[in-house]
Amino acid sequence: MAAFHPLAASRVRISPLLLPAATAAGAGPASASAAVYAHRRRFAAIVATAAAAPAAATGFDFNAYMGERAAAVNRALDASIPADDPPASLHEAMRYALLAGGKRVRPAVCLAACALVGGKEAWAMPAAAAVEMVHTMSLVHDDLPCMDDDDLRRGKPTCHVVYGEPIAVLTGDALLSLSFHHMARADSYPPDVDADKHPARVVRAIGELARCIGSEGLVAGQVVDLEMTGSTETVALDRLEYIHLHKTAALLEASVVIGAILGGGSDEQIERLRKYARSIGLLFQVVDDILDVTKSSEELGKTAGKDLASDKTTYPKLLGLEKSREFAEKLLSDAKEQLSEFDQEKAAPLLHLANYIAYRQN
Amino acid sequence: MAAFHPLAASRVRISPLLLPAATAAGAGPASASAAVYAHRRRFAAIVATAAAAPAAATGFDFNAYMGERAAAVNRALDASIPADDPPASLHEAMRYALLAGGKRVRPAVCLAACALVGGKEAWAMPAAAAVEMVHTMSLVHDDLPCMDDDDLRRGKPTCHVVYGEPIAVLTGDALLSLSFHHMARADSYPPDVDADKHPARVVRAIGELARCIGSEGLVAGQVVDLEMTGSTETVALDRLEYIHLHKTAALLEASVVIGAILGGGSDEQIERLRKYARSIGLLFQVVDDILDVTKSSEELGKTAGKDLASDKTTYPKLLGLEKSREFAEKLLSDAKEQLSEFDQEKAAPLLHLANYIAYRQN
Repeated sequence: MAAFHPLAASRVRISPLLLPAATAAGAGPASASAAVYAHRRRFAAIVATAAAAPAAATGFDFNAYMGERAAAVNRALDASIPADDPPASLHEAMRYALLAGGKRVRPAVCLAACALVGGKEAWAMPAAAAVEMVHTMSLVHDDLPCMDDDDLRRGKPTCHVVYGEPIAVLTGDALLSLSFHHMARADSYPPDVDADKHPARVVRAIGELARCIGSEGLVAGQVVDLEMTGSTETVALDRLEYIHLHKTAALLEASVVIGAILGGGSDEQIERLRKYARSIGLLFQVVDDILDVTKSSEELGKTAGKDLASDKTTYPKLLGLEKSREFAEKLLSDAKEQLSEFDQEKAAPLLHLANYIAYRQN
Repeated sequence: MAAFHPLAASRVRISPLLLPAATAAGAGPASASAAVYAHRRRFAAIVATAAAAPAAATGFDFNAYMGERAAAVNRALDASIPADDPPASLHEAMRYALLAGGKRVRPAVCLAACALVGGKEAWAMPAAAAVEMVHTMSLVHDDLPCMDDDDLRRGKPTCHVVYGEPIAVLTGDALLSLSFHHMARADSYPPDVDADKHPARVVRAIGELARCIGSEGLVAGQVVDLEMTGSTETVALDRLEYIHLHKTAALLEASVVIGAILGGGSDEQIERLRKYARSIGLLFQVVDDILDVTKSSEELGKTAGKDLASDKTTYPKLLGLEKSREFAEKLLSDAKEQLSEFDQEKAAPLLHLANYIAYRQN
C-alpha cells in the first residue's frame, strides 16, 4: 500500500520513512481500514480542489509570495539589530538566532491579514518582524539545556551551543524586548499610516502580542509541556491541545490578529481571522508532530524522532498517525471556512498558507 | 575616628563593619586625609539642609509616602497575576518572585514623576507595576546558576532554588511579557485618562520601557558585566559606568520618563527628569557597591561581600570607598539640580527619593 499524504495529488515526493514511522508511532492496524482509504480519497479530492482552484483562478504564485515576504522580513530583521554596535557579542548572538533562515510563516500571515482587511502590508511590517523576534526568543529559551536541551535548530547549532548558556538566556530577553521596542517606535512605520488611529491600533496590537507570550500563551504551553515530559503517564487529549494552543497557536493567532488590527480591520474581521489562526496554529503543531515521526533530521533541519525518543505525548502517539491526519484535515477545513466571508482573491495568500502549513515537508 | 556616613547627621545607625570593610575594599590611607574630613563635613551639611528643609517646609513624610506607594503597587501587582488559574505552577513562581517585598523604588519614582508634571498617579499605576515586573524579571534571570548564581534575594531563596531552573527562565519571560500586556490593556487605566492623547502616550511609554531592557539597557549591562566577571584584569572606570548605566540606571530612567509621559509632561520636563533619573540610577549602583562591602547579608537581605569574593570590579575597588562616596555626592547634587526647575513642593517626593537612594542601608 502507498503511504497516504495529502500532497500526493499534486506532488510526488512521499517519504519512504512514512510507513515504518507511522507504525512505530502506534498508528496500528486501523490505518489500513477501508474507511480510512475512502476518507483519504475524499480528502485528496477536497485538497486538489481547494488548493489548485484559487491558484488557477487568480494566478496566485504562493512560492513567489512567500519568498518575497521572507526577503522583506529578513531585511527588516537585519536592519533591526546593528552588527557592530556594542555589546557586539550580544548583537552577534541575537543576529545568529534571528537571521538563521526559518520559513517566516508568522510574519507572512501577519502581512497577509493586514492586506486582507484593506491595509498596506508596510503598516504591519514592524509587527511581522516583532512576531518573528518573539518566535525566535521562544526557540532560544526552549532549546536551553535546562529546558528541551536541543543542540540543532534550523540546521545549525543552537544559540547556547555557540554562545553559551548565559548569553542565550540574555539573547532571548533582548529579542523579546526588541519586539516591543520595534512595534512601539514611531520610526518603524511608514508615514502614510492614519495618524489619528495609528497609536490606538499599535497599543491594541502590542497587547495582543504581549498576551500570547506569557502565562496565557507560549510560556504557559512550555510549562505544561515540561510538566508532561517529566511524567510517565500518557497525557490526555485536552491537555495536549492546551499545550499546542498555547505553545504554537497563540503566536500564530497574535500574528494574524495584529496584522488585521494594524490594517484597520473591523472587530468582526479580526475575530474571524482569530479563529482562522487558532485552527492553523493547532494544525501547524499536529503537522509538526507528524513530521517528527515521519522525517529525518536532515529533512527537518532539526533533530527528528526526538518526541518518540523522549516518550513525549504527541498527536500520533495519542491518536495514531491516521487520526492525526484526519484531525489536521478538520482543522484545515475550519480555517478555510473562516476565510470564505472575505474576497477570495484577497484571501488567496491565507488560503494557500493554510494549505502550506498542512502539507509542508519540514 | 568615626566611620563617615551621610546619614550620620540624622540617623545614628552606623555599622561598625564600615571601616574594616572599607580597608578591605582598598579605600586605603587616603581615607584618613584632612581633605576627606573637610569634604565629609561639607557633605553632611549639604545633606542636612537638602534632606531636612523640604520636610520641614512642606511637612512631607517620606516614609509614609513610600509606604503608601509600595502598598498600592503591591495591590496592583497582586491583582495582575491570578493565584489559582492554570498554569498554577507558573503563576505561583511569578507571584513568589514579584511579591517578595522589595522597596518598590522604581514604581515610586514612576508615580512621583507622573504627579510632578501634573498627572494623576493612577494614570501611571499600570506603568509602575510594569517597571517592577521588568525589574523582577531581570533579578530572576540574573540570579540563575548560569549567570550570577545567587541563591538569596530579598531575604528569601531565589526563584530557581524554589521552582527549578526551567521555571525560573520561563517566569522571567512571563513577567517581561506581562509588563507590556499590563501597560497595553485599556482596562489597566482609570476612565479619566485623556482619550485622545492616551494611546500615543502609552505607545511612547512602552517604547521607553522596551528600550531600557534589551541591548540598549539591562541586558547589555548584564552581558558586559558577565564578560568583566570572567576576566582577570581590572575594568576601566568608563566600562564600569557603562555597566551601571545600563544595568541599573536604564530602568530607573525608564520608570521616571514613563511616569512623566503618562502624566502628560512636556518634552523639556521629560528630558529634565531623564537626566535626574540617570543620576540617581548611577547613584543607586554606586551605593549598592558600597553597601556590598560595608553590610552583612542579614542587613542586606541578599548575599553580602559577593563582589569582593568574586573579585568583581566595583566603584570601591576602583576608586576606593571615599572617592566612591564623593562620586555619589556629585550624582546626588546633579539629580537635585534637575529638580530645581520644578515646583519644590511637588518635587519633594523625587528629592527625598534621591536622598533615600543615596543614604539607604540595604
